[in-house]
Amino acid sequence: MMKELLYEGKAKRIYKTENDQVVLVEYKDSATAFNGQKKADITGKGRLNNEITSLLFLKLKEKGIDSHFIERVSELEQLVKKVTIIPLETVVRNVAAGSFSKRLGVEEGTPLKAPIVEFYLKDDELGDPLVTVDHILELNLATEEEIKVLREKALEVDAVLSSFFEELGIRLIDFKLEFGKDTDGQILLADEISPDTCRLWEKETNKKLDKDVFRRDLGSLTDAYENILARLGGHQHV
Amino acid sequence: MMKELLYEGKAKRIYKTENDQVVLVEYKDSATAFNGQKKADITGKGRLNNEITSLLFLKLKEKGIDSHFIERVSELEQLVKKVTIIPLETVVRNVAAGSFSKRLGVEEGTPLKAPIVEFYLKDDELGDPLVTVDHILELNLATEEEIKVLREKALEVDAVLSSFFEELGIRLIDFKLEFGKDTDGQILLADEISPDTCRLWEKETNKKLDKDVFRRDLGSLTDAYENILARLGGHQHV
Ligand SMILES: Nc1ncnc2c1ncn2[C@@H]1O[C@H](COP(=O)(O)OP(=O)(O)OP(=O)(O)O)[C@@H](O)[C@H]1O
Ligand SMILES: Nc1ncnc2c1ncn2[C@@H]1O[C@H](COP(=O)(O)OP(=O)(O)OP(=O)(O)O)[C@@H](O)[C@H]1O
Ligand SMILES: [Mg+2]
Ligand SMILES: [Mg+2]
Repeated sequence: MMKELLYEGKAKRIYKTENDQVVLVEYKDSATAFNGQKKADITGKGRLNNEITSLLFLKLKEKGIDSHFIERVSELEQLVKKVTIIPLETVVRNVAAGSFSKRLGVEEGTPLKAPIVEFYLKDDELGDPLVTVDHILELNLATEEEIKVLREKALEVDAVLSSFFEELGIRLIDFKLEFGKDTDGQILLADEISPDTCRLWEKETNKKLDKDVFRRDLGSLTDAYENILARLGGHQHV
Repeated sequence: MMKELLYEGKAKRIYKTENDQVVLVEYKDSATAFNGQKKADITGKGRLNNEITSLLFLKLKEKGIDSHFIERVSELEQLVKKVTIIPLETVVRNVAAGSFSKRLGVEEGTPLKAPIVEFYLKDDELGDPLVTVDHILELNLATEEEIKVLREKALEVDAVLSSFFEELGIRLIDFKLEFGKDTDGQILLADEISPDTCRLWEKETNKKLDKDVFRRDLGSLTDAYENILARLGGHQHV
């Protein structure tokens, strides 16, 4: 049976299933950065992100945080609840890095006084600009109440994942989440949580174990992602 | 007697006075845009901005809004209360224009549902980046309470100036304010309010009567500023 493609993004393909409340996500072996300007095919990346995301959504579930995740069904695929994605990227930062450091002149690696939540407009043409609450309201992207929910959920995810990674010898520096609305209008955590969407630094060495390895040409991306997967107790590939 | 220069900026010079709570501001005949990349000397601009700013601060005073302004003392100079400037540019927008339109893909001229207050880090080297409340707190630029005060005062200024300009056949599209702290730690409106720091469009024609005339090469800057000054009832220069 042919899978019906609903959407192809830079990192994943979304397919229809027989259940119209469920979609199949297929993780691709492609890496992109700088809004698609840098690209590469990296064998193994799809499998690694599919498995890592699955394990992290399960961990969150265990701690009482729901997501769209239903189950991983193959090396590259998982079933998730279909949602209408809110076109905002919700970023949580524990330590200054990346665009935050550059834009605000704060040295990478500086711990923040408290976790910072940022919202970016999900719009590749505009380059995903940072937006304030006033902007979100003006653009009708979410209500004030919904923005509060996004912020609270993002901070909950941060608390769970920070202490989980900490136990595994990893510092969760920052990460990006996407949320959607289900058919009841409930806000649900969606998309992926992987080394593509998190900054993960080895505690002992500050070694980067995330997409910055690709962005900054720091070595083997799959070695870094295998390292994360192994710590999470996932199946290692040899 | 030599005036002792405390600071020379792109548009003004600040001098010491005998009273250490008061400084003299001298408006320069220079126009700059795009973070100083575009520059020109424009005879008359200093006089026009000195007079327009003075009239606007007086208008605000009349409506119960205090500022640093004490009095205009010559064609190019005014006395103001010395403050410690909070390194934030507070922007109020009534209608989409400029960087707002560009960043968020909203057509210039689109009226906003409600006035939007934005904060930019006053840092030329970083290009004055947009900052959120979380950023301001992290960078220790202001407390949560102070941010609230900045926002409220900015909206008060917007209400007064919007209806004042409206009566004069001008739409106040957006503007930038700076605030400082006096020796008692009180937050006081400071710097300037002029066609350099406001977008002002003629109601009938949508003709721009502000620094966009310089930024976008739309004709004579001093003609535009003389037009504003004349409507404000200032002395016209012939
Ligand atoms: N549960 C879900 N239901 C529907 N769409 C989802 C769900 N989870 C994630 N998505 C969306 O599916 C797409 C996944 O593809 P991918 O991550 O490759 O996109 P992308 O290249 O990042 O581009 P963009 O995210 O900007 O569309 C994204 O648009 C994401 O927002
Ligand atoms: N009452 C005040 N007391 C002390 N400083 C003030 C006061 N009002 C304004 N200033 C400051 O005086 C300077 C005015 O100079 P100008 O506007 O030319 O600076 P600029 O080129 O815009 O550069 P910048 O504002 O980034 O320093 C600004 O730094 C402004 O913040
Ligand atoms: Mg994506
Ligand atoms: Mg200035």
